Amino acid sequence: MKLCELASALGKQFVGNPETEITCCSSPQSAKSGSLIFVENSKYAADAQKSGASAAIVPPDVEIDFPAIKSERPSVTFAQAVSILHPQKKTSGGRDSRAFVDPSAKVGEGTDIGPFSTVGANSRIGKNVLIHSNAAIGENVTVGDDCVIYPNVTIYDGSILGARTVIHAGCAIGADGFKFMPDKSGRQIKFQHIGIVRIGDDVEIGANSCVDRAVLDETIIGNGVKLDNLVQVGHNCEIGDNTVVAGCTGIAGSVKIGKNVIIGGQVGFKDHVTIADGVVIAAKSGVIGDLGTRGIYCGMPAVPLGEWRKQSAAISRGPETLKRVARLEKGPRAD
Amino acid sequence: MKLCELASALGKQFVGNPETEITCCSSPQSAKSGSLIFVENSKYAADAQKSGASAAIVPPDVEIDFPAIKSERPSVTFAQAVSILHPQKKTSGGRDSRAFVDPSAKVGEGTDIGPFSTVGANSRIGKNVLIHSNAAIGENVTVGDDCVIYPNVTIYDGSILGARTVIHAGCAIGADGFKFMPDKSGRQIKFQHIGIVRIGDDVEIGANSCVDRAVLDETIIGNGVKLDNLVQVGHNCEIGDNTVVAGCTGIAGSVKIGKNVIIGGQVGFKDHVTIADGVVIAAKSGVIGDLGTRGIYCGMPAVPLGEWRKQSAAISRGPETLKRVARLEKGPRAD
Amino acid sequence: MKLCELASALGKQFVGNPETEITCCSSPQSAKSGSLIFVENSKYAADAQKSGASAAIVPPDVEIDFPAIKSERPSVTFAQAVSILHPQKKTSGGRDSRAFVDPSAKVGEGTDIGPFSTVGANSRIGKNVLIHSNAAIGENVTVGDDCVIYPNVTIYDGSILGARTVIHAGCAIGADGFKFMPDKSGRQIKFQHIGIVRIGDDVEIGANSCVDRAVLDETIIGNGVKLDNLVQVGHNCEIGDNTVVAGCTGIAGSVKIGKNVIIGGQVGFKDHVTIADGVVIAAKSGVIGDLGTRGIYCGMPAVPLGEWRKQSAAISRGPETLKRVARLEKGPRAD
Repeated sequence: MKLCELASALGKQFVGNPETEITCCSSPQSAKSGSLIFVENSKYAADAQKSGASAAIVPPDVEIDFPAIKSERPSVTFAQAVSILHPQKKTSGGRDSRAFVDPSAKVGEGTDIGPFSTVGANSRIGKNVLIHSNAAIGENVTVGDDCVIYPNVTIYDGSILGARTVIHAGCAIGADGFKFMPDKSGRQIKFQHIGIVRIGDDVEIGANSCVDRAVLDETIIGNGVKLDNLVQVGHNCEIGDNTVVAGCTGIAGSVKIGKNVIIGGQVGFKDHVTIADGVVIAAKSGVIGDLGTRGIYCGMPAVPLGEWRKQSAAISRGPETLKRVARLEKGPRAD
Repeated sequence: MKLCELASALGKQFVGNPETEITCCSSPQSAKSGSLIFVENSKYAADAQKSGASAAIVPPDVEIDFPAIKSERPSVTFAQAVSILHPQKKTSGGRDSRAFVDPSAKVGEGTDIGPFSTVGANSRIGKNVLIHSNAAIGENVTVGDDCVIYPNVTIYDGSILGARTVIHAGCAIGADGFKFMPDKSGRQIKFQHIGIVRIGDDVEIGANSCVDRAVLDETIIGNGVKLDNLVQVGHNCEIGDNTVVAGCTGIAGSVKIGKNVIIGGQVGFKDHVTIADGVVIAAKSGVIGDLGTRGIYCGMPAVPLGEWRKQSAAISRGPETLKRVARLEKGPRAD
Repeated sequence: MKLCELASALGKQFVGNPETEITCCSSPQSAKSGSLIFVENSKYAADAQKSGASAAIVPPDVEIDFPAIKSERPSVTFAQAVSILHPQKKTSGGRDSRAFVDPSAKVGEGTDIGPFSTVGANSRIGKNVLIHSNAAIGENVTVGDDCVIYPNVTIYDGSILGARTVIHAGCAIGADGFKFMPDKSGRQIKFQHIGIVRIGDDVEIGANSCVDRAVLDETIIGNGVKLDNLVQVGHNCEIGDNTVVAGCTGIAGSVKIGKNVIIGGQVGFKDHVTIADGVVIAAKSGVIGDLGTRGIYCGMPAVPLGEWRKQSAAISRGPETLKRVARLEKGPRAD
């Protein structure tokens, strides 16, 4: 692809030889002839030329004597260039003879089903879905158009997935939630789960994550939500549109998370808490109450970031504080 | 099912028209004609009538002009009603022709084995077991009667499961534990694990959880234990009967946990600690020593809840304490 | 096997009857005639004789009237004895007729492929590899000689594994990392990942762990690295040789970890931090900055262990400190 063609496809201005041939996207470290790289910060622009790449995406203010595409957000434009230069596999509508699709299931046009995958009774799979090998899709499941289901995923009966949703390897969607009640003898009685999981459009769920079905009604993952790997979402949770959850985070039952929330890794949520739109929660925090106001929260229990910084400073000064208190107790006579 | 029949099946008293038709269990939010709901707290009883449900399970003291079943523990009775009105799939004894069962394995009557599941040499599967698709059961494995094994579960060689045990999707039962010893050059030498996992009756293990085999002897999960999703149980652990472990908790090797212990989410256990019967451990705690006395523990390191509350209050007052100490240091002259 | 033969195979001295028959390795608790046990600490040597075992591995200084092999590190020698007396399954070169191997894939001699496993186009599997059932190996994957791939593992396209590497059940190797960038409307734009995962020789990865592919270039797991269960390794991480990572630890993107590092369970790493060779990080720590000096670190945020101990002591004395400060504020008149 020529530089001018790529710039045009990206809707961006360029400088330098329009005929420059671009064949792949690279990091500066692995750039070679044909490579496109990106430079987020204008002070590194000079390095672009030394990298061996054929062109770079750079901020608009960079003056550069090198084939370059100008962008306000080089990383975003680079991500788009990756999608153009390294297109994802297209589905071909091939159903492997080694897959098992129940005769009552409906599978849309253009959908691929890999070997040893199963689609249960009465399930409906949309168009151009890519179901890799070894995925287990239960009964009465709905999968929207253009989804990707990676190997060893399990989708339990009755789950509903929107369009363009990606489920990475090993995820368990729709397993029973964790609701047991002890009887008098201490035996735990199970609360059978008859709800479902409903996942929106444009969702991506990372490898080995779990989204439990609702006890009754629905566990809801909104449109555009992104969950990282090894995330646990409990029964009856609701996660708002475009919320992002980093790895190893655990969300207990009936938590309501707003839209555009950003949640770090290894965060824990107590059951039934409510999180407002736009909240940011730092990694490893423990959320044990509602977070009703937009802002950054941190700590266990989670408090506003400014407060956490002061607490954290006080903790690191704790040993010194003990000495100061001891000195004060000795009194002025000790001076 | 009629109200009178359901009440009788539940062994409870009822009020209102005995002929009231009940078809499903619902939440108040999604209740419709035919729905049974439950009201845990008598102050919400009036809402039951507005929900559109046909009947409710309510506490005994509620005076209600509405078809209702009386129960001391409405949620427990409702859970039983769910089991009656929404019965689980029964096995039919069907072994899918696409499953692989080693000729030396023994499979009990009434057991279902789904497509692309494997049962290795010399394994013994009980009666009325439901093995979903894509499950991998190794050699010399024992699975008791009435178990349910969900898709993409792996049960390593030699593992033993009791009766009525449920293993959710993606679990790894019997993988090698984590025991390596550095040699002089720093290379980690593996301690080959020759023990097994023994899981009791009526256990439920959540999706993508792991229970490692013992180095020697057995890792033991007692009867009635319930593990949530993404729980890690290390080699040679012993978990007592009816203990409950919430999601994302990690239990290092050789931990001994008593009976009827309740463990929150994201708790961590140091290896070789011992936890007494009936202990409760709050979410996100770090247990680095024995907890020998019944009680609630919290924090990192975990301490009795009362102590944690005081510590936690002192932490949140830490910034203020620093100021007070500084003021004291200035002395009375500063007044 | 006779005691003298075993001692010879282990390259160690022995005492007692050289003809003593050894049939298995046991714990002292389960020892029986034919058992070999080990005694790490000489003060427990007397117990060896009471255990019912036929022989023991003991420290060199132990005077014992019992068949015994002498070793400076009894546990290491015992681990070697386990490998001798309980040899791992050998591969036989059997490819199950129910496996799917793409015609363009190359599979080495002596390699076993279990039922319902898949090997994608252009992948190269080495010699004497043991691929259990239900594993999904993508396209253009390289697996070195003598690897073991357990059931329900997913290896994404393009991943590279060295020799003698073991991947436990349910792992996801090469899933997309977690890199999304919000557009003006708040929608998260995906950064398509075109890098790969490169895993060295003699690596072991525990059950249900995840190693994400690089955005560009490579996520690198060095030789001899050992990851426990449920570990998350983000895109573009580099983990040095012989580093050990305990369960449930989460490593965000682009973290560089040195060689011979020891990382406890449930540790969290901020993205882009660098950890020096030989560092030790205690369980549950949160690493939010570089750890450039060899030593033991602990806490959230992680600080040197000595400092953490002092901080931790100050925290536990926090409630008392509050009282002391209040007393000081009342002044000497209060005495």
